Amino acid sequence: MKENRVALVIGAGDATGGAIAKRFAQGGYISCMTRRNAGKLAPLIAEIEADGGRAFGFSSDARKEEQVIELIEQIESTIGPIEVMIFNIGANVPCSILEETARKYFKIWEMATFSAFLNGREVAKRMVQRERGTIIFTGATAGLRGSAYFAAFAGAKHALRALAQSMARELGPRNIHVAHVVVDGAIDTEFIRSSFPAMYEKKDQDGILNPVHIAENYWHIAHQPRDAWTHEMDLRPWMEQW
Amino acid sequence: MKENRVALVIGAGDATGGAIAKRFAQGGYISCMTRRNAGKLAPLIAEIEADGGRAFGFSSDARKEEQVIELIEQIESTIGPIEVMIFNIGANVPCSILEETARKYFKIWEMATFSAFLNGREVAKRMVQRERGTIIFTGATAGLRGSAYFAAFAGAKHALRALAQSMARELGPRNIHVAHVVVDGAIDTEFIRSSFPAMYEKKDQDGILNPVHIAENYWHIAHQPRDAWTHEMDLRPWMEQW
Amino acid sequence: MKENRVALVIGAGDATGGAIAKRFAQGGYISCMTRRNAGKLAPLIAEIEADGGRAFGFSSDARKEEQVIELIEQIESTIGPIEVMIFNIGANVPCSILEETARKYFKIWEMATFSAFLNGREVAKRMVQRERGTIIFTGATAGLRGSAYFAAFAGAKHALRALAQSMARELGPRNIHVAHVVVDGAIDTEFIRSSFPAMYEKKDQDGILNPVHIAENYWHIAHQPRDAWTHEMDLRPWMEQW
Amino acid sequence: MKENRVALVIGAGDATGGAIAKRFAQGGYISCMTRRNAGKLAPLIAEIEADGGRAFGFSSDARKEEQVIELIEQIESTIGPIEVMIFNIGANVPCSILEETARKYFKIWEMATFSAFLNGREVAKRMVQRERGTIIFTGATAGLRGSAYFAAFAGAKHALRALAQSMARELGPRNIHVAHVVVDGAIDTEFIRSSFPAMYEKKDQDGILNPVHIAENYWHIAHQPRDAWTHEMDLRPWMEQW
Repeated sequence: MKENRVALVIGAGDATGGAIAKRFAQGGYISCMTRRNAGKLAPLIAEIEADGGRAFGFSSDARKEEQVIELIEQIESTIGPIEVMIFNIGANVPCSILEETARKYFKIWEMATFSAFLNGREVAKRMVQRERGTIIFTGATAGLRGSAYFAAFAGAKHALRALAQSMARELGPRNIHVAHVVVDGAIDTEFIRSSFPAMYEKKDQDGILNPVHIAENYWHIAHQPRDAWTHEMDLRPWMEQW
Repeated sequence: MKENRVALVIGAGDATGGAIAKRFAQGGYISCMTRRNAGKLAPLIAEIEADGGRAFGFSSDARKEEQVIELIEQIESTIGPIEVMIFNIGANVPCSILEETARKYFKIWEMATFSAFLNGREVAKRMVQRERGTIIFTGATAGLRGSAYFAAFAGAKHALRALAQSMARELGPRNIHVAHVVVDGAIDTEFIRSSFPAMYEKKDQDGILNPVHIAENYWHIAHQPRDAWTHEMDLRPWMEQW
Repeated sequence: MKENRVALVIGAGDATGGAIAKRFAQGGYISCMTRRNAGKLAPLIAEIEADGGRAFGFSSDARKEEQVIELIEQIESTIGPIEVMIFNIGANVPCSILEETARKYFKIWEMATFSAFLNGREVAKRMVQRERGTIIFTGATAGLRGSAYFAAFAGAKHALRALAQSMARELGPRNIHVAHVVVDGAIDTEFIRSSFPAMYEKKDQDGILNPVHIAENYWHIAHQPRDAWTHEMDLRPWMEQW
Repeated sequence: MKENRVALVIGAGDATGGAIAKRFAQGGYISCMTRRNAGKLAPLIAEIEADGGRAFGFSSDARKEEQVIELIEQIESTIGPIEVMIFNIGANVPCSILEETARKYFKIWEMATFSAFLNGREVAKRMVQRERGTIIFTGATAGLRGSAYFAAFAGAKHALRALAQSMARELGPRNIHVAHVVVDGAIDTEFIRSSFPAMYEKKDQDGILNPVHIAENYWHIAHQPRDAWTHEMDLRPWMEQW
């Protein structure tokens, strides 16, 4: 069963989630990944397998409690114990507070916070039984400070950080390592390349985050001996203003 | 119209909301108050009127967008311009993350954060047209730091603080004063008296917050000249550990 | 003796210290003020006295322990009990970390932090005997966040905030109210007028802080009932970016 | 010259500094270490050399500008370029604010903050010429929050954090990586063993930090690709209350 230890990436639809799944597969975990439509994970799974790793994709809407419960049950009963869970969903659509709709304000919280709660709670229930495990939440600078036009995203990311901190304080003494990683800056993704070409140009100077390097830090956190656990760290390009 | 300036207290169901409404009525505002069942506001309104003030109560579910829109429209068109809005709703029901239900996690956010967004946005729309106004959110220590068993409440209060900060940064330069008051400690309410008698005993030593004194600080904030606005202040009893 | 209650302003050499001294004199305190050369306080004292108040000036180098001890002893034995102490010294001279001299790095700390410690400790010793008193430190945004070219000033102001917080936590339960006020923005002073004329032009739009309004907030803090004390509040002009 | 890259540990008098020096020597750096009396470093140097590494010890009082300047000059001219500097000095002697002496308040700042400034500035001057380098400061929870009886230590550690943040913001865009590591909890040292036996008993349960594990995290930070640098991370035992 040791060999079947699972790293579960909730939200593997972007480059970061994919890189994390690859990193843990390289390290001997079975990488389980979710996105709303698992079909799109096929190329990533093929890549991991070609590299000698093992990976599985799952269609799961992280905001739906019944789907989350079923997902965790399915993985635990058919693949192996979830030793690491990485939550990697977030959606920022800046907007004036005067124009923000109730629907969008709710949806941003539902995706970035409520999903994190549901998935975090469900894996924590299994981990406390085994008295071990790691849960990592991908945060943002907006989780530390509100800004004009960021009320919805900042609210969701603040709440996510509060979730991480509350879980760490409750579950740490039960040997569950809960961490929150503040990713501050643009990440090298297709989205940034197509939507923010000026930002993407900084890539040549290492001015945007490489998902492979983000993944390496997640791996580092997940393997810290328990006398020296990190609860929070930030990651940003050297040239980023902050 | 100057005489008809309105102070609107969202969530006047407890001692704090009531004390704030009284304070602003004493200062010449028309105090408008909401709670889910406005009938229960009758004694408070009578008290304010006996004191020479003016006050109105409204049944409004602060979590329902259409009710919030209607409330603001009704007050603005029939009573006067809302010059001050105080948001005073929060609900803390501590729980292990392992036992927390999706329903309760959502409801705590809906009451403490989503309501604040809806009411804050609606009054802000009016205030920016007049290029003046004050919005005060009642926060908590849980808005600054997560704790074991407080994932839901800390999340909601963190998000509230992010809302206040984001609104302040966007609306400050439009002459709307947005503030967040961290109330840290038990408040002298019927709820504390009946449910936490040991805590209530500290009242004799000024060990729990007097709603009248909280209200005085809200009044102070709402009347700061605009060259020296406070965005955040805390209030706690002298003997409180923090 | 009640009538002889003293408000001591350490660092009354600028407009803020002067305005605070005036405000407390108007409220019935005997305002005692220090600066290195007390002779320069004569016009301020005359102004307070013409206004019906009482005030005294003292030459005291706030960085010299023996002078601080003597100052407090002299005021307590000849004028009255120090009920309120306001520490109002700070000096910001921005500089690249690469160019910063040891002498200047030390001096900025000595003025803004070490002086605060010396004066705070000495008045606290008297206040704990009487089991009452208020100590207010004037802080800055640099006390919350470091910035390029601000290593010395940010260090001193961070340390000042730590002093205020540590004193509040130790002395609060002994009925000494310790507060830290973050003043964020330019203040209407001769220094700003002559050195930063572009900044000073914002005065017409209330874009720089009026010392009289700062003083009013210090007065407010110093007279909060002890069940609702503020430890920290910020003050900034409505149009300030933060 | 590449082979002669130096990792300089300021304050290698305790287990943490020693473990860091060993880790960087194992990784191919020449470890240079300082303490006031370099003679005491002989066993550590012997151990590193027996392990195949290279190390040098220096007597240097980190609080003395001329000694710091000379130290950096000597290392750079006779051994190699300082690629990594780790500042690892701190001294906490808790005390009531009422009893704290000016001498001790100053000394704690001088050791934990002023020394960091002197050493940080001097190595930064070299690093900016080479346009690369890493500087890591060892912080503490007291750098984030003041507490009763911790005014001196909290002040010094707050100022250290401000230094780290200010340097990071100025020097990051010049390709110098500046980081601040919050070590929260007792470390496995002779001092803890002899002075706090009850605390030391937690060692069997991984309840105190292992210096080797702290060192591994410093190594990790010092080798992050520059598109994903960490400015701040915390380290604490799994069972620590925080």
